[in-house]
Formats: sequence, C-alpha cells, structure tokens
Amino acid sequence: MYPDLNPGPRILLGPGPSEVHPRVLRAMATPLVGHLDPEFMLILDQIQRLLRYVFQTENELTLALSGTGTAGMEAAVCNWLEPGDSILVGVNGYFSERICEMADRYGARVRRLEQPWGAVFAPEVIEAALREEPAKVVALVHAETSTGALQPMQEIGEIVHRHGGLLLIDCVTSLGGLPVKIDEWGVDIAYSGSQKCLGCPPGLSPFTASPRAREVLHSRRNKVTNYYLDLTLLEKYWGKERVYHHTAPISLYYALREGLRIVQEEGLEARFARHRANAARLWEGIEALDLALHVPEPHRLPSLTTVVVPSNVDDLAVRQRLLNEYHIEIAGGLGALKGKIWRVGLMGHSSRREYVTLLLAALRDILQR
Amino acid sequence: MYPDLNPGPRILLGPGPSEVHPRVLRAMATPLVGHLDPEFMLILDQIQRLLRYVFQTENELTLALSGTGTAGMEAAVCNWLEPGDSILVGVNGYFSERICEMADRYGARVRRLEQPWGAVFAPEVIEAALREEPAKVVALVHAETSTGALQPMQEIGEIVHRHGGLLLIDCVTSLGGLPVKIDEWGVDIAYSGSQKCLGCPPGLSPFTASPRAREVLHSRRNKVTNYYLDLTLLEKYWGKERVYHHTAPISLYYALREGLRIVQEEGLEARFARHRANAARLWEGIEALDLALHVPEPHRLPSLTTVVVPSNVDDLAVRQRLLNEYHIEIAGGLGALKGKIWRVGLMGHSSRREYVTLLLAALRDILQR
Repeated sequence: MYPDLNPGPRILLGPGPSEVHPRVLRAMATPLVGHLDPEFMLILDQIQRLLRYVFQTENELTLALSGTGTAGMEAAVCNWLEPGDSILVGVNGYFSERICEMADRYGARVRRLEQPWGAVFAPEVIEAALREEPAKVVALVHAETSTGALQPMQEIGEIVHRHGGLLLIDCVTSLGGLPVKIDEWGVDIAYSGSQKCLGCPPGLSPFTASPRAREVLHSRRNKVTNYYLDLTLLEKYWGKERVYHHTAPISLYYALREGLRIVQEEGLEARFARHRANAARLWEGIEALDLALHVPEPHRLPSLTTVVVPSNVDDLAVRQRLLNEYHIEIAGGLGALKGKIWRVGLMGHSSRREYVTLLLAALRDILQR
Repeated sequence: MYPDLNPGPRILLGPGPSEVHPRVLRAMATPLVGHLDPEFMLILDQIQRLLRYVFQTENELTLALSGTGTAGMEAAVCNWLEPGDSILVGVNGYFSERICEMADRYGARVRRLEQPWGAVFAPEVIEAALREEPAKVVALVHAETSTGALQPMQEIGEIVHRHGGLLLIDCVTSLGGLPVKIDEWGVDIAYSGSQKCLGCPPGLSPFTASPRAREVLHSRRNKVTNYYLDLTLLEKYWGKERVYHHTAPISLYYALREGLRIVQEEGLEARFARHRANAARLWEGIEALDLALHVPEPHRLPSLTTVVVPSNVDDLAVRQRLLNEYHIEIAGGLGALKGKIWRVGLMGHSSRREYVTLLLAALRDILQR
C-alpha cells in the first residue's frame, strides 16, 4: 500500500524550493542530538555567525525561525505591530499583499503604497508618503517572488529613520543569491527562507533585527499574540540563557549549517556573480526565443525571472510538458499575474549553466521556435 | 573555522527528540520535489491516510502542520478561540499552563481547573466545572511531558459535548506510542509532534479536527489572527483545491511519511505493547535502585517516566555524567518540578530493551547503588 519513497527526478527551476546540494541532503541524515544538548548549542552559535555573514550584519538578534519564509514574514509583522500601530507597505506583488493581510490580522493600521506588479518604489515616493503621515514600520519586498522585481535599497533606510520608523524587508528570494546589506542599508527587520538562494530544504526562516528594532520589541505594551514566533522568548533560546521554548527541528538546522558553510566556501561575491551570470544567459536566451521578460532590466531579479506567456500559448500545457517530458519544474503566475507569466528560478544549487541551456532548449522544442 | 558536521554519539532518552530510525534519516536525504508537484500531492495524501490510522479517526481535516508540537498547540488554540471565547483548561503541568498562556494571548477567557503536577482529572470534576459554567473549548493534556501523567479519556468527550463544548487534547507524547482514539473518545481537536513516539525528527505537528470542530471553525466571526497556522487556508492546500499557502518543508514530510510507514508496518497494537513492556522494565529497575517514581502506576505514562531525584543527589551532576560518560540524554524537571525529577523518555525508536538495561546500569554506577 505504501511503497518505498521514490519521487521522480526533478530539475527545480521554479520559485522554490530550489535544488539542495548533496552535502546538505547528507547532513540531514546525521543522527540527532537533543535541542538543549551542548553540542547543538555550538551548532546554533555557528548558524548565527554564518547568518550574520550572509545578512552582512552585526545584529546580535540573528537566528533562524522554526518555520518557512511565511513564518518569517509573520514574525516580522507580529513582533513589531500591536493593535493600532501603523505600517506603510509598498504593495507591488503577491508577497507585499500578504504583509498587508498579516498586519491587518494583528490589528495594525495598514497604509498601502501601490505600484503595478513588476514595478518598484523610488525613495522619493516613500519619503513623500512618510511626510504625509509617518509609520511605525515601513515594509518592502526586496525580491518579489511573484513578479521578478528587485527593489533598490539605497537611501530608503535613511528616509525611514528620519521619519522615526523601522524598515522591514522581505529577502526570501535574495538572501544568499544577491547582495543583502542589512547594516549598510539601515534595515531594521529582515527575514528569508532556507529553500531558495541558500540552497537548503524549506522549513526554516533566517531572521535578523537591528538593535533599534530590538529596543522597540522590548518596549511593547502587550505580549506578542503569536507564541510560537514570539522573539522575546526565542531570543532567550538563541541567547546565553538557552531557555527552552520549543523543540528545534534539529535535522533542518543541520541542513542550514551545511548550506551556509557552502555559501561561505563559495564566498558571497563569487556566489552573487554566478547568480548574475546564469540569469544573464537565461535572459539572453529567452529574448532569442522571441519571448518577452516581464520586468525591465534595471530592476530585474537575477534569482527569479518572469517570462511573459505569449497570447497564443497555453501556459499550463507548456509547464506540464516541461515537467512530464523534461522533469523541469517552473511555475506560473500568482494573483494578478496568473496565466500571464512563467516564473523561472535560478537559485542556489539550481543556478547552473547546464540548467539554463537545457531549459532554453526544452522551451525551443515545446514552443517550436 | 566550520568543520564537518560531526555531533557526538547520543542515546536519546529524554522527553524528545527521540532517536530517529535510520530509514527515516535516509528518507530525508531524498532529492526534493516541489511543494505543488503532483508527486508531492500523492505524498501528502499518503501522510493524511497514515495520520488517520495513528489518530484512529475518520476526520477529513487531518494533516501535519509545518511547525513543531508547540505550533500544533497554537493552531488548536488560535483557530477555535476568538476574543472573549471561553476555554476551560485542566492545569496539571507545564504544557497545560502553556495552553492557558496561549489562549490568554488570543484574548480568550481562560478558566483553570487545577490539579497538582503529576495528578489527572476525573470526569466528574470536569462535569462539575462545566455545570457551573459551560466553555466553548475544554482542553486537557493526554500525556503530560512535564510530569509523566497519563490523562484517562473515557467519558470526558461525552460530558464536554453534553455541555455544548469542543474537546481539545494535547497528545504530543502519546501519539504513536500509546492508544489515541480520537473518534471513540469524542475528541474534537488534537495535535502532536513528529519527534516523540512517531520517531521522526522534530519540525512537524500532526493535527486532526472533527467535523463538529470544523463547523465551528467555519463559523468564526473573524479571520484567524495567526496566518501561518490558519486552518481555513491550510485545509485548502491539503484538500482538493491545492491552493498554495506556504512552501512545505518537503524533507520533513518525506521523513514523516517514512516514520508513519514504519508505525504501520509494526502495527499500532504491537507498538503500544513494546512501549508498555519497556516502560514496565524501566519502572521495575528504577524501584530496584531504591528510587521513587513521581506518578502512581494507574496514571503513569509509558512513554515518559518521571523519577524523583533523591534529596542527597545533585540532579545536574548525574545528568551531566550520563551525557558525558555514557552519551545518554535524559532531562530534568520543568517549572514546578525543576530540580525535583528526572524525565526519561522511551519513545518510538528509543523504546528499546537494551537502552533500559544500559540506563539502569549507568544510573547504578553513578549513584553507587
């Protein structure tokens, strides 16, 4: 009734999960130690140091939450927004919509700053909005997985701070694949997922908060409603106190440690260059197939490319042929872009020249171009 | 700076995580498929059917949440309690205290029915409390990991339903190791963890809800505050719609499938008998060492045994010697029982005769008895 686990071969070129390096897969097969074992505490310390390296930050409060990127988003929202608090959200895709949705659920006053899906926000636009009405938190998605747009981060931190706010960014599809400079950009709260450019399996959410954000966290009027993601408790497990909060998913932390070690061995700059080079090859090949890219080059995300589905082509049929005949996973559009784009991820261990070549050849065959 | 992952050998006899079967460890090394891949949908279906088998239920809404047992507890609380709703909690240990804490955070009116840590609740006591004042939800911990007490479940479901409430139980330390009869007992909401008697790594929370509970869920006045654990969304990913909610931790689901397959191969009755037999050997040996057991036999949990630390013995020193000299992990007490008991888990793949023999011999050496 239940045969051996034996999933078919897959080349993961969707918006995540990306392929996991064999070393990371092997790390998960390591026998467990307890979540309060002194040896596991060393592993958490190492993960913390490696996360500071990829986040390019000195933030003490840097850790990985025991949930996926969505849990990271929720932690960013629920720890800093109390009922009645204000948040200004740059809404230009599915995941910024989700930030609004979450903030609303926690009783925040949500103000939406809108751009079309695929566009980004100029610093002046954010400044103008804050001049009109300040906000406790300003949220932007650094790398919008639903549109393929890359939000430029220069000047924004300085503007948000000048108006007394905290800058929150979603870097689920950027961390480990392109520069995320938490300290240089003046970002106060940031989260990511383990399964994209970091090349680990999904299930953990790297997270960091600035000393400024931490002060705000510690001066909350009420307890954080969400217990599982309460950073005032989690910081005591990740800090010197080592107070039990929940049983950490040991095997996923083994995986994250190994994945981060691979990032460090490759080096951030080399890793970013690899992601850029493979993306450039993909973009060139897509245009050579007479297909259009959804996002103009200056704001195009190297980790996640969005291709316009030609009007005479059946979106789903193409994706099914890629999966069934070539074992390649890419994704369709979400929300406003459903049926209109394909989403191709070249992230982490999936960002490989041979995969770009293969995908372009498969698309050429299927689309008969 | 970061050497190969190489944790020391460990015999995990604490309150979890328990040891993970090599087949389960190997399953995690399987390359990933996407969280919306048709092959992964089959895996989710299989997990669902296997979970119904261990929960002994026909509940359609049966799934595994992408978080640990603590997330399961939070899902049970936040999906069924809206601000002002009433919950009656049987408080007799650390985890029932935690249910109160979570319910309070979500704005529920929490009524505590207290017993000493290690005692359990008689049906009459619950009936009397509900006659005094009904409650929307009545919560009990089936297997209290902090005390080693096993809550008898006969009659309680019937009583709770007669008073118009929903019965919620925590079976983190029972599911897969001793009978959990969701349908027969009339349980409406139940959660567990993957890392105890199921013998999988931590990180997922098996969850089930009765049709009655589901109706209540669907008639909420407000959206669930907690987005990550919102079952009105999650049921659409696990149901026929397959609507994306978050990127499932694929590797942990591979592990859970394999762990549940092992449970099914062994068979529930044989598995329960193994847990009982090894617990009985441990209890006999502990008493032969002139050590006392914290919980009287009728309510003693076979999966988690609590041993009274003799007054002339240094709790921590003994645990450190067990860990450093014998590579055995057991745990100390939590909360009211801190420093007063040792907690010994014989759960899942850790419930083995040779481990009982070894632990007793090691304790004899260390305590010089």
